[in-house]
This record gives sequence, structure tokens and C-alpha cells, in this order.
Amino acid sequence: MPVTALKVELLAMTPDAMTLIYAAFRQCYAKGFVGKDFKKWVKGEVPLEQQKQFIENILASGHQSPIEHVSFTFAVEGVSRALTHQLVRHRIASYSQQSQRYVDAKDFCYILPPAIAKNEEAKAIFEEFMTQAAETYAKLQAILEDSGRGKKANEDARYVLPNACESKIVFTMNCRSLLNFFELRCCNRAQWEIRNMAWKMLKLVREKLPVVFNLAGPKCERLGYCPEGEKFSCGKYPCKLG
Amino acid sequence: MPVTALKVELLAMTPDAMTLIYAAFRQCYAKGFVGKDFKKWVKGEVPLEQQKQFIENILASGHQSPIEHVSFTFAVEGVSRALTHQLVRHRIASYSQQSQRYVDAKDFCYILPPAIAKNEEAKAIFEEFMTQAAETYAKLQAILEDSGRGKKANEDARYVLPNACESKIVFTMNCRSLLNFFELRCCNRAQWEIRNMAWKMLKLVREKLPVVFNLAGPKCERLGYCPEGEKFSCGKYPCKLG
Amino acid sequence: MPVTALKVELLAMTPDAMTLIYAAFRQCYAKGFVGKDFKKWVKGEVPLEQQKQFIENILASGHQSPIEHVSFTFAVEGVSRALTHQLVRHRIASYSQQSQRYVDAKDFCYILPPAIAKNEEAKAIFEEFMTQAAETYAKLQAILEDSGRGKKANEDARYVLPNACESKIVFTMNCRSLLNFFELRCCNRAQWEIRNMAWKMLKLVREKLPVVFNLAGPKCERLGYCPEGEKFSCGKYPCKLG
Amino acid sequence: MPVTALKVELLAMTPDAMTLIYAAFRQCYAKGFVGKDFKKWVKGEVPLEQQKQFIENILASGHQSPIEHVSFTFAVEGVSRALTHQLVRHRIASYSQQSQRYVDAKDFCYILPPAIAKNEEAKAIFEEFMTQAAETYAKLQAILEDSGRGKKANEDARYVLPNACESKIVFTMNCRSLLNFFELRCCNRAQWEIRNMAWKMLKLVREKLPVVFNLAGPKCERLGYCPEGEKFSCGKYPCKLG
Repeated sequence: MPVTALKVELLAMTPDAMTLIYAAFRQCYAKGFVGKDFKKWVKGEVPLEQQKQFIENILASGHQSPIEHVSFTFAVEGVSRALTHQLVRHRIASYSQQSQRYVDAKDFCYILPPAIAKNEEAKAIFEEFMTQAAETYAKLQAILEDSGRGKKANEDARYVLPNACESKIVFTMNCRSLLNFFELRCCNRAQWEIRNMAWKMLKLVREKLPVVFNLAGPKCERLGYCPEGEKFSCGKYPCKLG
Repeated sequence: MPVTALKVELLAMTPDAMTLIYAAFRQCYAKGFVGKDFKKWVKGEVPLEQQKQFIENILASGHQSPIEHVSFTFAVEGVSRALTHQLVRHRIASYSQQSQRYVDAKDFCYILPPAIAKNEEAKAIFEEFMTQAAETYAKLQAILEDSGRGKKANEDARYVLPNACESKIVFTMNCRSLLNFFELRCCNRAQWEIRNMAWKMLKLVREKLPVVFNLAGPKCERLGYCPEGEKFSCGKYPCKLG
Repeated sequence: MPVTALKVELLAMTPDAMTLIYAAFRQCYAKGFVGKDFKKWVKGEVPLEQQKQFIENILASGHQSPIEHVSFTFAVEGVSRALTHQLVRHRIASYSQQSQRYVDAKDFCYILPPAIAKNEEAKAIFEEFMTQAAETYAKLQAILEDSGRGKKANEDARYVLPNACESKIVFTMNCRSLLNFFELRCCNRAQWEIRNMAWKMLKLVREKLPVVFNLAGPKCERLGYCPEGEKFSCGKYPCKLG
Repeated sequence: MPVTALKVELLAMTPDAMTLIYAAFRQCYAKGFVGKDFKKWVKGEVPLEQQKQFIENILASGHQSPIEHVSFTFAVEGVSRALTHQLVRHRIASYSQQSQRYVDAKDFCYILPPAIAKNEEAKAIFEEFMTQAAETYAKLQAILEDSGRGKKANEDARYVLPNACESKIVFTMNCRSLLNFFELRCCNRAQWEIRNMAWKMLKLVREKLPVVFNLAGPKCERLGYCPEGEKFSCGKYPCKLG
């Protein structure tokens, strides 16, 4: 019944990403065929610094579609089902999640919320409950298997598993969908767990493709004000009509 | 701590649905403007039976895009978070789900799996655990509130809530997305809870728009064979290479 | 060979639209089931003015997803293929367009750009060319039919049809996709033809659902500045860094 | 005014594609974290042949979602606007197309339909018309520029450009969207130009990722029958109820 920690791995990203975005932007405005020049551009025939400037200028005007050609695939462990239920609401993305129907959850790992971790009484209650949950899962699983439910025992026993139960998931998002994800989930108003994951993701992709992600983050950073309203704002930026 | 039952309500559907699909199909092949004739067609200037036949013939050839113009909005209660986590994986749809961050879950209702309900021992274990979960939630909520977490107490306390915990959700799908949903979720291989909901939804939409949904259901009904493979097939239809 | 004029008809919209959005928003934050109260709310048990205020407040904070439950279906004629090629780039939408493969384009109607209409020389050149295009289409169609291409004659003859050639199309967008459409296409930087259509669409939907569309339009109206950059801005609003 | 030929270049694809799909499938059913093993699997710790078999078995049962993690980016020239208008109807994809608003189309290249190329009379008519179109475009462009329309002259002059006019486009699709694209566009019922492009694309991706694309192509190849109906079938396979 161990507590588990968030791990975010980058499994794949589209190769030659900056030049691919550059080529896609260029094709919109150029008479020639970028398919002919792409390999030379990758090798720096157009200096990379110049490609970067070109992209930054166009992104600054709000035209984002060419960054969709570049995708990132992440593998994540140490996240709760509370987090993944929020994550999969992002529809411009692809998901492959560990199934609680097929994977035995006996001795599941769990996520311990920081606010609970730092209160001894709460922590003790929480941990004891996790042990009870694991025991109850195992008992139900055994009874259901014995009573002929066979492999579907997991499927029903899992109704007792708590949100804290760890999940693992592989997912892919393109740059445009990622910018939207970071706007919403890096915000201080986002829930702490998915916010932590979002910032870790941002760190990884910013390193790989700064031209796109240098300015990424919560909406306020780009807007210069907080659009969440006085009632919900974290106060880092003034509200729109503040 | 009551057990709760599935309820599926149809809140809205696109009006004049059959004629809308008819008009959309017609516009693809017609010289004239369907915008001019639509109201007359609604009133039966083209007999409804003829509209129906026209649509059935084209759908039979596998051309589905015009049915996307018609959408249905459902409100559902009495479903578990296990179900909603599966539901929201359908990306061509819109969702508004009850938030466990904002809504107090004290004395939550829960879903009791039928295989557990019919085994007395399992049922007793399950019900006792639900009581413990509710108590643990309430305790953590109180401690967190006292220790200054304020309204965010719910957000952390909910990590103990089990999958069985009831959720409520409003969602909209167009007919084409619904056909795909029914193919996957009416299948006997689908999990029992979402399968029950899928069949209830199908009953509602079939009544409202039989031309589209008369033949809807699991893939096997349309294909005449089961595509799930010998290992997983329910046996109702032979497998493809069986 | 007549010149043709834009016509935008609203074929359908989701019924009880404002209350549907209200109910969807409410379900996110409410303990109770909106499926139980929806019909009463439609009848005004919650005063419509109060529903409106509730929606406006939440929309103002940037939370838009519940407006996706409401869709509008338009039928449009008198638009060029130049316009429809831009229109169908909006991916969160459904389209049924008149096919140039199946529909005979002999004596096609065409769109006359205003800047050409008001220059007599240009207008004469343009109109003569349209006549030539129609004649060339008819000649090729006849030769191809005679030489055994049969019904596929249209399919090849259409390669001579100009962008100006009229098309007809039925399409459906939900409110959220429409807001994005209006942001981009009501902008003075958008091409004149699709901008005209966008403003006509906006007029229609604003009348039907003011709570959502009262503030809709080009981005600048909402932002208070022009995000297109000095080089492209129409000058109505100052640029961001102006 | 040259005739131009189709060229399809593969600009980018997700690296380690087969292992990425393998890892995504595995994560659904495995207790362990694939993020830990991915690099070892790329190097063949699980033999590639075994990865291939695993993927083939699951794909055969119709479960396709994990192949979405892999995307391909194409650059295409030598295609007509008739083709691109069909292409961009595929919504699960990203497009960057040469703009007729910004790019000067004087002396445009064009696509010559094969059925016209092989009929001398038709060919002469077609080619003469292309010359007229180019001349008309240039004349209108000059007049509009002179009369103060400035850079927007292209935007209006292009209303005379024929469907045959060449376009260039960069686009990205994931494997699942590509399978759908090939089902529809490799079919003999598809229009000849987009069918040619689809087969060229299929050849490229099949070479790169045979595990996914070996069985790709028109629907009939997979189904063993033609779903298009007697009226439209090419006759290669019997119709469903034939």
C-alpha cells in the first residue's frame, strides 16, 4: 500500500519540430514547394535563428494552426483517477489508460494530497482508509471469483477503489492542444494534482521546443490580467475589470 | 447513504430531425436550394415516408455525415464515476459534469453492482465500506476546513471517495457519434453499467428518430458476425474467422 | 449565367436553448439533478432573467463548455467555392455541400466580387470570362460524355469551373464553435465574402440567443485591442503593443 | 502555364512508431509503467517481431485507439483546388495550405485530368481555357491594383481561377485518421485525383509502418464485400446483399 509519486516521461515528439512548423507556415505564403526545401532547412540552409524569429512573429499575431503539425507523447504514472478523469476531458488528444477492468488492483498504490500529508491526524485517517479499501477490494474480488464471476470480479470489486488510487496513462497532444492545456491547468485555480503534472509537462516541452512554449502557461501570463473573476482569482494578476 | 438507480432524461433534440437529415442529404445531389423548400418538406410536401426511404437507402451505403446535423442532449443521474470516466472518453460530444471539487459529497449516494447485490456477504461488505467512506470523507473535510484549507477541503477529501460514488452529468452527442457509442457500449463485452445506460439511451432516441436508430446497437447486429475475437466474444454471433 | 446573391437560412436550432445552457452550467455545481427540474425551468420557475444573469456571469469568466450543448443548422446559397473552401476548414462543425461531381454545373450562377462590380472594365472582363467558362464546361462535358466517360463527364469538366462558381451548403455548428468562427471571420481582416456571411449568421443567432451572442464578433471587440499586428490591423482598435 | 504533376513528400513521422503503439497498448493491460521500459523496448528487449504480433492481434479485434499516438506529416504539390477542397473535409487532421489570397497566381500551374489529356479535342479546349484564365487573372489583378485595391487585388482576381489551378499543402494525420482516409479515398468510387494521392500516401506509410498499414486500403479489402451498393459499386467485390 505504498504512497506513490508523479513521474512524467516524454516518450516521443515529432522530429525536426521547429523546421516543420517553419515549413508549414511558409507554405501558406510561398509560391514554391516547401517539400523540396525541407531537408535543406533542417540542415540550417535557412539559419535556425531566422526560422525561430519567423515563427515567433506569426505566433504573436495569434495564428496558431501550423504548430498542430508537432505532437508530443507522454507516459505518466503516480497520478490519481481524480486527475485522469480531468485529463481525458481534453478532447483534442489521444489516450491509452491502464484499465481497472483488466488490471488487478490488489495492493494498489495511492496519491496522498499534500494538505492531508502535512496534518498528522488527517494523514493517519487517510492511510488507514486506504488499507481498508485494499482489504475490501481483495475480499470482494475473492467472493466474486468464487461465486462464478471469474475475470469480471475485478470489474465489480473496483467500485470500492478510491479516487486516490494510482493510474498510469500514455497520451499524445499536439502543440496547439498543449497550449490550451497549459492555459487551463497551469493556472493557480486548477486543482493541485493536475497543475503539478501540467508544469512538469511544460518544463519538458519548453526544453524541446522553446519557440512554441517559452510563453506558454496560465492565461494570465499572456493576457496580463486574470480572467477568472474576483471571486476565484488567485490575485497574482489584477482581474480584467479590477 | 442510499443506493441509487440510473435515470436517463432526454433534455433536448434538434427539431424536425428527419427532414433536416433529408434536406442535408438532398443538398449534396440537388441543383436547387434546400433552404427554400425545407419548411414545406417539414409539413409533408415530400411525404414523410418518402423522406424516410431516401435516408435509409443512403445510410445503407455507409454514407453517414448528414446525420451529424441532429444532436441529442441527455441528463443522467445514478451513475458511478467508473461510468463517467468511460463516458467522457468519447471525444465527439459535449459534457457538463457535477464537480467533486465544488459539490459537497457528504452522504453521497452510490451505485451497487448487481453481482454484489445478489451475494449477501459481498453486499454487506460493500455497504459497510460505503459507510466508512462517507465517514472518512466527513472527518477529513472537517479537519481540513479547520486547518485553513477552507473551500478546498472538498477537493482533497474527495480522494477517499470510491468509484461507486454517484455522479450526475449532462451531455450532447450528434447521431453519428451516438451510432459509434452504441456500437461500442451496447456490446455484451462493454461493462455492465455503461451498457445499461447505452441501451436506455438507444430506446429513447430510437423512439424519436427511428430512421437513424432502428438498426443501431452493437457492431455484431450490423456486421452479422462478432469482431471481438474468440477470446472475448459473448458468443451471440460467430466470430469473423470462426 | 446569372450573378447570384448570398442567402443564409436558419434551418434548425436546439430548443429551449437558454435553459439548456443554464441547466448544464447548474449541473456542474449543484447537488440535485437538473433532469428533474428542466421542464419547470423552461416554463420559468426560475425566472428567465435570472437564468440569463447566471449564464452571463459564468461566460464572463471564460468558461464556455456548457454552451456547446446548443447547435444551429444553416443552409446557405449564393456563395463561391472560394468561400466554402475556407468555411470547411472549421473542423468542429458538420457539412453537407452540393457536389460538383454529381450536380450538373451547366449555366452555373456566380459570385461577383464588389470591387470588380464597381469597375466597369473589370466587370466586363469578369462577366465575359464567366460566359467562356460555362461554354468550355459544356463543350468538355459533351465531348467526355460522347467518348464514353458517361456520368463522370461532370467530374472532369468541373476542372474548368472558376472559384466564383456558386455553391450551396448545409452546416451545423455549436455555440462555442460559432463564437470562434465569428472571432475569426467577422474581423475586418477576413476575406469580404465569408465576412459578409459571418455577420449575417451572427445577426440570426444573436436574435435567437442573445445571452451567448450579444458580445460575439471579431476578437478586438472582446479584447479591446487588435491582435493582428500593426502590419495587418484594420486600425479600428489599437494593436496590443501599439 | 505548365501542366504539373502530383508530388507527395513525407516530411515527418513520430519516431519509434511501432514500439510507441506497442507501449500504449501494453499500458492498458499492464500493472507496470511502460514509461520505464520504453527505451529498452525500442532497442529490442522485447523482440520487434513479438511487438508486431501483439499489435496485429489487437488491431484485428477492432481496437484502434493506440495507433493514434503516431502521426505522419505530408507535403503535397501538383494537386488541384478540387482535390484540396475534398481533402480538408477530413476533420481529424491539421492543414497548412498555400493561400490564394496572399500568393500571386500569375502563370499558375494546372492539373490536366487524364480523360481530357487523352482526347485531343478536349485537351486543346482545356489548355486554351487555362491560358485565358491566366490572362484574365492578370488583367483583373492589374486593374484592381491600379484602382486602389492594393494587395487585395489577388483576393478578388482569384475568383476567376479554375478548380484545375494547382495548390500546395502541408498536412498531418494520425494513423487512425489515415486508415479512415484510405478506406474512403483509395476506393474506386473516389474521384481519380484524390485516389491517386491516397495510394501514393499509402505506399509511403506502409513502408514506414507495415504493422498498421499492411491491410489498409478501400473498405472492400477489409470487409470482403462492397458497401457502396449495386448502383455505385466498381464490381471488384460483390455487394453486401448481392
